[in-house]
Amino acid sequence: MEALDYHAEERRKAEFDVEEMKIVWAGSRQAYEISDRVARLVASDPVFRKDNRTMLSRKDLFKDTLRKAAHAWKRIIELRLSEEEASKLRFFVDQPVFTDLHWGMFIPAIKGQGNEEQQQKWLPMAYKMQIIGCYAQTELGHGSNVQGLETTATFDPETDEFVIHSPTLTSSKWWPGGLGKVSTHALVYARLITDGQDHGVHGFIVQLRSLDDHLPLPGITVGDIGMKFGSGAYNSMDNGVLRFDHVRIPRDQMLMGVSQVTREGKFMQSDVPRQLVYGTMVYVRQKIVADASCALSRAVCIATRYSAVRRQFGSHNGGPETQVIDYKTQQSRLFPLLASAYAFRFVGEWLKWLYTDVTRRLEANDFSTLPEVHACTAGLKSVTTSATADAIEECRKLCGGHGYLSSSGLPELFAVYVPACTYEGDNVVLLLQVSRFLMKTVSQLGSGKKPVGTIAYMGRSEHLLQCRCEVERAEDWLKPNVILEAFEARAARMSVTCAKNLNNFPNQEEGFAQLATDLAEAAVAHVQLIIVSKFIEKLHQDIPGKGVKRQLEILFNVYALSLLHKHLGDFVTSGCITPKQGALANEQLRLLYSQVRPNAIALVDAFNYTDHYLGSVLGRYDGNVYPKLYEEAWKDPLNETVVPDGYHDYIRPILKQHIRVARL
Amino acid sequence: MEALDYHAEERRKAEFDVEEMKIVWAGSRQAYEISDRVARLVASDPVFRKDNRTMLSRKDLFKDTLRKAAHAWKRIIELRLSEEEASKLRFFVDQPVFTDLHWGMFIPAIKGQGNEEQQQKWLPMAYKMQIIGCYAQTELGHGSNVQGLETTATFDPETDEFVIHSPTLTSSKWWPGGLGKVSTHALVYARLITDGQDHGVHGFIVQLRSLDDHLPLPGITVGDIGMKFGSGAYNSMDNGVLRFDHVRIPRDQMLMGVSQVTREGKFMQSDVPRQLVYGTMVYVRQKIVADASCALSRAVCIATRYSAVRRQFGSHNGGPETQVIDYKTQQSRLFPLLASAYAFRFVGEWLKWLYTDVTRRLEANDFSTLPEVHACTAGLKSVTTSATADAIEECRKLCGGHGYLSSSGLPELFAVYVPACTYEGDNVVLLLQVSRFLMKTVSQLGSGKKPVGTIAYMGRSEHLLQCRCEVERAEDWLKPNVILEAFEARAARMSVTCAKNLNNFPNQEEGFAQLATDLAEAAVAHVQLIIVSKFIEKLHQDIPGKGVKRQLEILFNVYALSLLHKHLGDFVTSGCITPKQGALANEQLRLLYSQVRPNAIALVDAFNYTDHYLGSVLGRYDGNVYPKLYEEAWKDPLNETVVPDGYHDYIRPILKQHIRVARL
Repeated sequence: MEALDYHAEERRKAEFDVEEMKIVWAGSRQAYEISDRVARLVASDPVFRKDNRTMLSRKDLFKDTLRKAAHAWKRIIELRLSEEEASKLRFFVDQPVFTDLHWGMFIPAIKGQGNEEQQQKWLPMAYKMQIIGCYAQTELGHGSNVQGLETTATFDPETDEFVIHSPTLTSSKWWPGGLGKVSTHALVYARLITDGQDHGVHGFIVQLRSLDDHLPLPGITVGDIGMKFGSGAYNSMDNGVLRFDHVRIPRDQMLMGVSQVTREGKFMQSDVPRQLVYGTMVYVRQKIVADASCALSRAVCIATRYSAVRRQFGSHNGGPETQVIDYKTQQSRLFPLLASAYAFRFVGEWLKWLYTDVTRRLEANDFSTLPEVHACTAGLKSVTTSATADAIEECRKLCGGHGYLSSSGLPELFAVYVPACTYEGDNVVLLLQVSRFLMKTVSQLGSGKKPVGTIAYMGRSEHLLQCRCEVERAEDWLKPNVILEAFEARAARMSVTCAKNLNNFPNQEEGFAQLATDLAEAAVAHVQLIIVSKFIEKLHQDIPGKGVKRQLEILFNVYALSLLHKHLGDFVTSGCITPKQGALANEQLRLLYSQVRPNAIALVDAFNYTDHYLGSVLGRYDGNVYPKLYEEAWKDPLNETVVPDGYHDYIRPILKQHIRVARL
Repeated sequence: MEALDYHAEERRKAEFDVEEMKIVWAGSRQAYEISDRVARLVASDPVFRKDNRTMLSRKDLFKDTLRKAAHAWKRIIELRLSEEEASKLRFFVDQPVFTDLHWGMFIPAIKGQGNEEQQQKWLPMAYKMQIIGCYAQTELGHGSNVQGLETTATFDPETDEFVIHSPTLTSSKWWPGGLGKVSTHALVYARLITDGQDHGVHGFIVQLRSLDDHLPLPGITVGDIGMKFGSGAYNSMDNGVLRFDHVRIPRDQMLMGVSQVTREGKFMQSDVPRQLVYGTMVYVRQKIVADASCALSRAVCIATRYSAVRRQFGSHNGGPETQVIDYKTQQSRLFPLLASAYAFRFVGEWLKWLYTDVTRRLEANDFSTLPEVHACTAGLKSVTTSATADAIEECRKLCGGHGYLSSSGLPELFAVYVPACTYEGDNVVLLLQVSRFLMKTVSQLGSGKKPVGTIAYMGRSEHLLQCRCEVERAEDWLKPNVILEAFEARAARMSVTCAKNLNNFPNQEEGFAQLATDLAEAAVAHVQLIIVSKFIEKLHQDIPGKGVKRQLEILFNVYALSLLHKHLGDFVTSGCITPKQGALANEQLRLLYSQVRPNAIALVDAFNYTDHYLGSVLGRYDGNVYPKLYEEAWKDPLNETVVPDGYHDYIRPILKQHIRVARL
């Protein structure tokens, strides 16, 4: 018997080779194969079941998460998975848990900031998970501003120890994942004080809990910070609070890769350049951008598939109603998000390359590209995560009322994703950092210093400030060079205008404060240009497979022109394009939507997500939505009894008019 | 001892009379007093406590909700509350529950659609809550398109009964609040069939559950549809699924206010004009707009207060860091939302007047204003709810990481609010309805038919299509007339452009389909103009109290100019303003933010929300945020034990390297 597939006809419509597109999406055939194999492994294992997750109480959810983490670790060992496979497995288990921080923050920080000796001592234990670590930086009263942390680490030369202490309530460590209930150790960031002198914030390895009975060690108060956004979602994680009452640790537990404190209590900066930490930062941010493309593509996959199932209005002579995916309003909201998923994927791929490039340069003591790399990764982190958070919610709305059900998967995806806009640098703060770099670049334009990399276009600013867009007909907007120049001109002009306006203020800092909003908008223009240009670079690569390249070209045009439409004010007021050209872009966009339409289902199939990973009744591969929604409903705990608990105490007295005498 | 108030200094800064502003916000002194009294009543009653709500399991949450509903009803009876007071009490209890539908949909529908006899029979029972009713319209496969409903009500002349039946899975009633576990009766919308003929969708009163033991009656399958977005939030409501297997009801349970079926099975339209139902629609939508201003002001109140508590960066010489509310980036995101809260409040007030006006006209058989009223209420519902949903999430982000905690109140507020974008008309569908009215108005401009009410400006379209904005300096943007004309010109030009472009299509319907996005944007421009013009009308009223009017003028300018900045592309490409004028508006906006700043806390105090209603540690009146956040954290169920449940099974085996042999 053939498997049920309500999307079969949609899949037949596709004008390209889906299997080849899967490889493009994954990055390589090898990456595709690993990902495919591990995803199936997770999906077929009953321990990793997650369809009941949003119904669990906090305690049950947490216990379920511990069980999954232990089972994942067991499978990783049993199957002798490679590091890449193990990380994929954790990814597909798809439930925030302490191991995310242990592998993603604790271990990398020891690698990056510990000295040789410290790495040899701590890493083997961490790799075997004989200790479990977290990353304790933010405090109750201090988020973005690391330099404002209050926790102290005071050196006691008498005993050769540091005394870790929380001097105020606001200095309580707050938010670290894995801290609340699980971690045995933490990387604690605290102000180093030797001989009464404050040397700023440094990292210290502190044991929190006994390895025998898991009880907190003396002087340590630790717990969970409570419920967070959504049901399921991040509530599987024990984000924690931590206070120190004069806790002593040996001197060699300060991470000494960069700075040291000697036996005599002398503070020494190492000769290792501080810039090395930027390598880690690029690594973390490329991962965040890659995650954005995953979350976005997942939401888009659900919304696209359900838009082909759902029908509303437009019935002719009692025939079926119109699939909502055929409505232009649906297309104009959905397809730009589909195109963004691909755009973010490709810029994320490029960031991976950038990381290896930076690492190579740093090792050769070449720090020349660092400011540009810093601006570009900060900006991409900000723009892709903000766009993704908004897009998940938009996809939920695109599913109509049913998107509001937990079984659609979208509420939990939104709730679990949004912190990405805040962690690793608040998105607005990051944009302002980008704008400072842009202003510096503009101010140096006359100096003969040639801008490189993603900011190279500024070197042609003379041309960009006066060029005219030559679009005369809608189809002119299909040319990548025309689009690229329009985006370059917009970015250059917005930066130059900001730089000019800054000069109207008595001092630079006052100007930055007053013009912050304009500066942030200029930064967005710069970052969107980067994404557009990396998509164009992708199109220049050799892309095999019938029709695959053609689809990417269409998606590129949708991405760029929908951005242009959204930010039309920027493009027109800066004189980059005329209102007429804006209208032509819009006209072209409508034609492009019609070209995406027959390929839409195949384009989301190319993400190769299992139904387990998607976790959405609306996004099911086979499109069998309504019977499954109906089936899911009955699993709710409220349906365990026909007459609800509370009927006799609270409903019956109302109906029987006994409410006045009811004891409530 | 003086009460702790960290915001005392902020409150001293205010340049206006807060008590008078509270009355402006409430609408009248009487409304203020009722609201204030009832809010305190609810806040001081321990049964209405809600700070632990997000930690409850579905079943416990539901039982807690039933208890609150019964207690609310008891208090309403004991205190002999008026209808207005009772409704305020339910509002401040702030937990979605079956009574919302009983009072808000079931009773009004019987009033509006039942005949005299039916009202006399059913309403007294409903008022006393001897029966509890819900509103069963949407089906699993059918949302917005009421005419596509599949449930049938077939008249059986033999027995003088209707047979209510669910012929397909997709015809299962799905979503009605109060249906899943509580309602004894439902207003069921079904296709009326007499003698094999389909007369379209009509309403029927159907008993669902026994009044003795609450068990579903024969032929009825009913249950809850499962978890929805968020923890707490709408999970307190038993949104339900309902299937009929040939359920028989007497003929007189069809609502016969508008159409009838006779004993012989003859279908008759009544002579009561169908337009009367529009009265109810205006009523429901003005309530939705009023609710939008409540939800938005609540989020803004939390974000504003916490922005004055939270400090980040900018410390000089070890002094305190800068309050984040002093940053322009924070102001430019927050203050337009504060201004929107007031703008929505005033347009909501006007809608209340419009409802009485329409009712009066309908009673006099004057249907002339109906199309305009329909367009304006549909548009306002769409624009205010979309803006509010986005604004709540923006406020959450404006609170940084802590906004992600349930104790901030913002995650639950978002989750509970977003359905407003979908129910009572999907927001995009509504905008398209508005645009159809706009296109019709444009096409009739030459006919001598004079547009009235909110569309009156179209009568001056000749002028509006060619007028030039006369702003030369930033302060010119403070003049309400200048702003009004710019918004009128933008709305008129966008509509006229759409109308012209529609002519390029072979037929009207194809044009509407292809240009849907442009049409929706034109509708938004029209609706924003309405909000702007109603704010101006408010400013023309007599507003007592020191400095109150001045504050409203500032908020008006912030609202209008921030919209202008956001939609700059519209204004500039349509030639309403020049890029230079756009830049001047932006400049003026920055100056306005500085004027809002010292009054910000007092402007949110004017909403007069109790800490109970706000439900947010971050938004506490006294600003004592951090100690309370710390205190709240320890209440999480995970903190009941120091060592978490699951340690021995799932954590210890990892640490002790016994994972291979662990039974998971």
